[in-house]
Amino acid sequence: MKLITGIPEMQREADALRREGRRIGVVPTMGYLHEGHLSLIRIAARHADVVIATVFVNPTQFAPEEDFSKYPRDPERDLSLAESAGAAIVFMPEIGEMYPAGYVTYVEVETITKVLEGKFRPAHFRGVATVVAKLFNIIKPHIAVFGQKDAQQAAVVKQMVRDLNFGLEIIVAPTVRETDGLAMSSRNVYLSADGRARSTVLHRSLRLAEGLIVHGERACPVIVSEMRKLIESRPPAAIDYISIADPVTLEELSSLKAGKDVLVSMAVRIGGVRLIDNAVVRVP
Amino acid sequence: MKLITGIPEMQREADALRREGRRIGVVPTMGYLHEGHLSLIRIAARHADVVIATVFVNPTQFAPEEDFSKYPRDPERDLSLAESAGAAIVFMPEIGEMYPAGYVTYVEVETITKVLEGKFRPAHFRGVATVVAKLFNIIKPHIAVFGQKDAQQAAVVKQMVRDLNFGLEIIVAPTVRETDGLAMSSRNVYLSADGRARSTVLHRSLRLAEGLIVHGERACPVIVSEMRKLIESRPPAAIDYISIADPVTLEELSSLKAGKDVLVSMAVRIGGVRLIDNAVVRVP
Repeated sequence: MKLITGIPEMQREADALRREGRRIGVVPTMGYLHEGHLSLIRIAARHADVVIATVFVNPTQFAPEEDFSKYPRDPERDLSLAESAGAAIVFMPEIGEMYPAGYVTYVEVETITKVLEGKFRPAHFRGVATVVAKLFNIIKPHIAVFGQKDAQQAAVVKQMVRDLNFGLEIIVAPTVRETDGLAMSSRNVYLSADGRARSTVLHRSLRLAEGLIVHGERACPVIVSEMRKLIESRPPAAIDYISIADPVTLEELSSLKAGKDVLVSMAVRIGGVRLIDNAVVRVP
Repeated sequence: MKLITGIPEMQREADALRREGRRIGVVPTMGYLHEGHLSLIRIAARHADVVIATVFVNPTQFAPEEDFSKYPRDPERDLSLAESAGAAIVFMPEIGEMYPAGYVTYVEVETITKVLEGKFRPAHFRGVATVVAKLFNIIKPHIAVFGQKDAQQAAVVKQMVRDLNFGLEIIVAPTVRETDGLAMSSRNVYLSADGRARSTVLHRSLRLAEGLIVHGERACPVIVSEMRKLIESRPPAAIDYISIADPVTLEELSSLKAGKDVLVSMAVRIGGVRLIDNAVVRVP
C-alpha cells in the first residue's frame, strides 16, 4: 500500500490510473478507523480496481466550539487497518496542504443542509461539501462510498455530485453496529462506561419506530412521541431532534404513505457526547 | 467540428480524450462570439491538442434586473466562427441541462468577489464560479483560457482552481480591441452610434493612467482623479468605479511601488450601457 500526503503527487497518480483505464474508488474518512470504515473500503474494492482511502480531520466542518482539536487520531493504526481492508493508497494530507494561507472558496449546497444536523451545526455541511469537492478533484474517482450512518451527509454529497456534474457514482453503505446495536462511530470513544451502556437507546428507539410502522402506524407525531418517551425514560438522554423525513429531500413528513421509504433519524446527547443514528424504513 | 449539447455525451467524450492522453483546452463563452473570443480559441489551440469552446448564456450570473433575456445570441454564427478559429468541439447545453429542477449547489469564492464588479453585481461571481466549476467537471480540461478584459473574473477563477484543486492551468489572454481602442465585448452591440463614439473614453483614460504612472506619478488618488476628470468631461459618462488595485488580491492601493504590477480597472455607463475595461501596468 502507498501513503501519499501531497496533492500534486496524488493528482499525478490519479491521472496515471485514469490513463491506464483503471476504475478508481474513494472512501473519504476522518481517520480513527473502525469496522464501519473498513466495510466502506471493502465495498469500494468490489466496485473499483483501485481503492483510495483518505484520512483527513477536516477543520472546516467543525464549529469553533466543537471537537476538532480533541477529535481522536491514530494515523499509524489507520494505515494498517486501511491496508488490511484492501486500500491500495491512503491519501493523508496536512491541513496546510488542503487549506493554504489565503484559502477562500466554499461549496454551498442549499435547502437540504439547513435541516436536521444542519440546524444544530450551521456551517458543518459547507465544510463537508467543500472538502469532498476538493478530494474528488484531487483523486478523480469513478465511485465514492459513504456510510448510511451519516445519512444527511450522503444526501448532501449526492446532491452536490448531481448539481456540479462530478460524473461519479455515490454508493451508500449500510451502518455497521456493535453487537448491542450502537452504530459505530469514532466519537464513541468519548462515552463513559455509563454513557456507553445508555447509548443503545438510539438503536432501540429506531427499532421501536420500525415496529410501529410495520404494525400500521402512519401518524409521524405518534411515532416520534413514542421514541421520545423511550429516550427520555430514566436515566433521560437529551434529544436534539427526532425526525421522520423524505430520504432524498429531507422534508419532514406528517403521515406515512404505503410503499415509500422514510428516513427516521435523530441526534441525542448522552453525558455530553452527541450521537446520531438513523434507519431507512419501507412503509408496508 | 462536433456540436455536443448533452452533459453525459460531453463527459464520455472528455473521458475518452483523457484516456487517449490528449491535452484538452477549454474556452468558456456566453456566445455571440467576436474577435476577442476567437483569439482565446486560437491561444487554447497552441496549448492543447483538442479545443472545446462552450457557448452558454449562464442565468445564475445575471441579477434579476440585468440583461439575461436580451443578451445577444447567434448560435449558428458562433458554430462557424468557433470552427474557423480551431475549436474541435462546441459544447452548447440547454439551461435545463445545466440547471435541472431542484438545483441547489453554488461555489462561493469569498473576499475577492466582494469588491469592484462584485460590489455592483453581488451574486455575479457566485454564478460565474458555479458554472465554471460545472464546465470543468464536465470537460475535464488541462488548460482553460479566459480574457484579461474580465480581469476580476480571471482572478476569481484562478482562486477557485487553486482552492478546489481543479488541477488545471488558467491562461489569461490579452484584451482584443477595436482599432479605436474600445475593448471587444458582446455587449458593445447595445451602444448607440453616439455611445459608440463616446465609448473610447474608457481606453483613453487607461492610457492616461499608464502615462502618469510611467512618468513617475505614485499617488493613486491623483491618478484616479485625472481619469475621472477625463471620463466626466463633456459629454459626461457615469462612473461606477475606477480602481487601482493589486492584480491578485484586488486590494485597493493608495500608492504605487516600483517594480510591481497594478490593475487599473473601471466600469462606466454610457447611455445606459455598462462597459468595463482594465489594464495591468508595471510600475517603473
